[in-house]
Amino acid sequence: MEAPAHPRDRDDELAAYLALTQVPGIGAARLRMLLAAFGSAGGAIVAPAGALAALPGFGPAAAAAVRGARRRTGAEILETLQRIGATAILPGDPAYPPLLAEIGEPPAVLYAWGDVTLLARPAAALVGSRNHTSYGAEAARLLASGVARAGAVVVSGMARGLDAVAHQAALAVGGATVGVLGNGFGVIYPAANRVLYEQVVGQGCLVTELPPGERPRVSTFPRRNRIISGLAGVTVVVEAAPGSGALITADCALDQGRSVLAVPGPITSPTSVGCNKLIQQGAKPALAPADVLEELGLSAPDGEAPGRSVGRPPVWPADLSNIERSLCESLDAAPAHVDTLVSATGLDSGAVLATLTELELRGLVAQRPGMIFELRVDDCGLRIGGGTNLH
Amino acid sequence: MEAPAHPRDRDDELAAYLALTQVPGIGAARLRMLLAAFGSAGGAIVAPAGALAALPGFGPAAAAAVRGARRRTGAEILETLQRIGATAILPGDPAYPPLLAEIGEPPAVLYAWGDVTLLARPAAALVGSRNHTSYGAEAARLLASGVARAGAVVVSGMARGLDAVAHQAALAVGGATVGVLGNGFGVIYPAANRVLYEQVVGQGCLVTELPPGERPRVSTFPRRNRIISGLAGVTVVVEAAPGSGALITADCALDQGRSVLAVPGPITSPTSVGCNKLIQQGAKPALAPADVLEELGLSAPDGEAPGRSVGRPPVWPADLSNIERSLCESLDAAPAHVDTLVSATGLDSGAVLATLTELELRGLVAQRPGMIFELRVDDCGLRIGGGTNLH
Repeated sequence: MEAPAHPRDRDDELAAYLALTQVPGIGAARLRMLLAAFGSAGGAIVAPAGALAALPGFGPAAAAAVRGARRRTGAEILETLQRIGATAILPGDPAYPPLLAEIGEPPAVLYAWGDVTLLARPAAALVGSRNHTSYGAEAARLLASGVARAGAVVVSGMARGLDAVAHQAALAVGGATVGVLGNGFGVIYPAANRVLYEQVVGQGCLVTELPPGERPRVSTFPRRNRIISGLAGVTVVVEAAPGSGALITADCALDQGRSVLAVPGPITSPTSVGCNKLIQQGAKPALAPADVLEELGLSAPDGEAPGRSVGRPPVWPADLSNIERSLCESLDAAPAHVDTLVSATGLDSGAVLATLTELELRGLVAQRPGMIFELRVDDCGLRIGGGTNLH
Repeated sequence: MEAPAHPRDRDDELAAYLALTQVPGIGAARLRMLLAAFGSAGGAIVAPAGALAALPGFGPAAAAAVRGARRRTGAEILETLQRIGATAILPGDPAYPPLLAEIGEPPAVLYAWGDVTLLARPAAALVGSRNHTSYGAEAARLLASGVARAGAVVVSGMARGLDAVAHQAALAVGGATVGVLGNGFGVIYPAANRVLYEQVVGQGCLVTELPPGERPRVSTFPRRNRIISGLAGVTVVVEAAPGSGALITADCALDQGRSVLAVPGPITSPTSVGCNKLIQQGAKPALAPADVLEELGLSAPDGEAPGRSVGRPPVWPADLSNIERSLCESLDAAPAHVDTLVSATGLDSGAVLATLTELELRGLVAQRPGMIFELRVDDCGLRIGGGTNLH
């Protein structure tokens, strides 16, 4: 919005705007209409009932509600924000998160506490169940730390369980995280997340569309979810039992036209049913941080890229014996004659040949004419050639 | 093939045919050509070298090889088969598995030991790593027993690990299973599978394209894999580390134009990397027996169908409390007023309202005007409405 020049005037106008955001039924769209009709929030708040009621979609009830707004309400919000060091970001402000501005029902105000520059960075939402398995926590840590190391922001909902794990994992690697609350600043919910709450304010950023002191209500969490997905280029569901809130966030992301990834899990685990079903319905699986980063147009930092070009050692099949692994490592540099392998490994030629035969049987090694052997696995340990790529 | 009428003549012709299958370089296609050119296998085996060499793609070396075939070799195979009670099924025989006849390189002979009628039934191949996790075994049991209960045949490779688990699970529910060997009858490989081997002969069917007594070699297992996938309408990879033989079987299935399903697993488990990558590349996930059966055009028997129409109780989210579950069960019959729920559950109205609020927060329950509550989960516990279906 266009703010008047004088700081006092500007605060008055902001207070009027915030007061209007508190009026039931007045969202970002109607606020835009009020500003356009009366020039400012201050103008709207004192506008005649008839003029208000005449606005498209308003009517006498909405007019009465607007006329009930008190600038003092907004001024009190501003005082609290100033006391704790938080800010109110309005649509059109340079700090308003660009992706959030694109959603169907963007917040009329975003209260932010912490490093607001994070709101403009590429971000991935990681969401998951409050009640999760140790596997879910491990997967959340793996993805959140990888995403954060690559410089992307990890967005989540500050809830118990996987939300908290994702925030903590990002902070643990010195990365950036944004926590979206379903209540106002000053209310710590759940209480168990008090330390995390302070860490996110100190090293990341907390955001909410609710004014300071507002307690969580039934309706606030689903609305919170649209902000989580709205801030992010991609939403990753880490582990979710059917019906869990994380699946609602995935719905929000889809409604917003954003991509949704899901982390596969055991088909025998109830908390993986939601994610496995999402994948069955067409969501891409998130197997590694690179899969998430790819959706943001980013690549993993050196040493974590899926390609072998960065010098990462290949991932051998997990069940190789030491001799098998040693031969694969020798062949990883270049195809080799069996005698070279015998010298390289220090094993006798019978053992080398028997092991090569076993590796050939498994499709990992191929024999060329003249007792030359070559590796048939790519950098992810998958067999090269054949038809495994289904696209 | 057309067999001559007299049993003795028929055995002679079969012996000649089997002898020809033993000639290196003579597969089903060249055998067809020999039979067409010389009227019978017996005719081909005594054909002049010049006539053999003149056949398209033959030449002097192949001619010499065919002339080296000895009917006695085939007669010995027949004697062994008769002694153990096995048979030789040739392309064109009514017992030759119809799906196997469609693959690019069908076996010139299929030795079968057990109930050969199983070879004509709808079948799913279940394949997996020799080295597997307990999760892999659990998933193999779940899918194999469900597939077998629905009347489909479980095909696998009689190897250690998940192959054996799949065969055993099918037998355990009184279902049908076909084991495909990479060696001839009479050789038990791996030795640990001796009991399974005898069970499959007794209650299922063992098949191989190799003559009795033939030992496993490096090259026989990949060729065995094409028969596993070739017998089945769908191949399911249960758990496979990169480079495992199960992925080769998946390649065979794709080459044969058959569908491949993969069982998702933890992204932190090396033995699930192969399956998760297959899914990332576009393979459908196999979450339940119904997913496998669907590929065969079959449905799960009553009580296992994914729909609620068969009276199966809905699957509630795993992390519901007893009170939450009790309320969901009450609402499963029909939407209800809060007072009805209070009487139905015997709880006080404060506890019921607080729990309904929690369920509403999770998107499981919705409130209608007049304190009426209704369930918002479908029979799989997934939230109804919204955009979770990505297709």
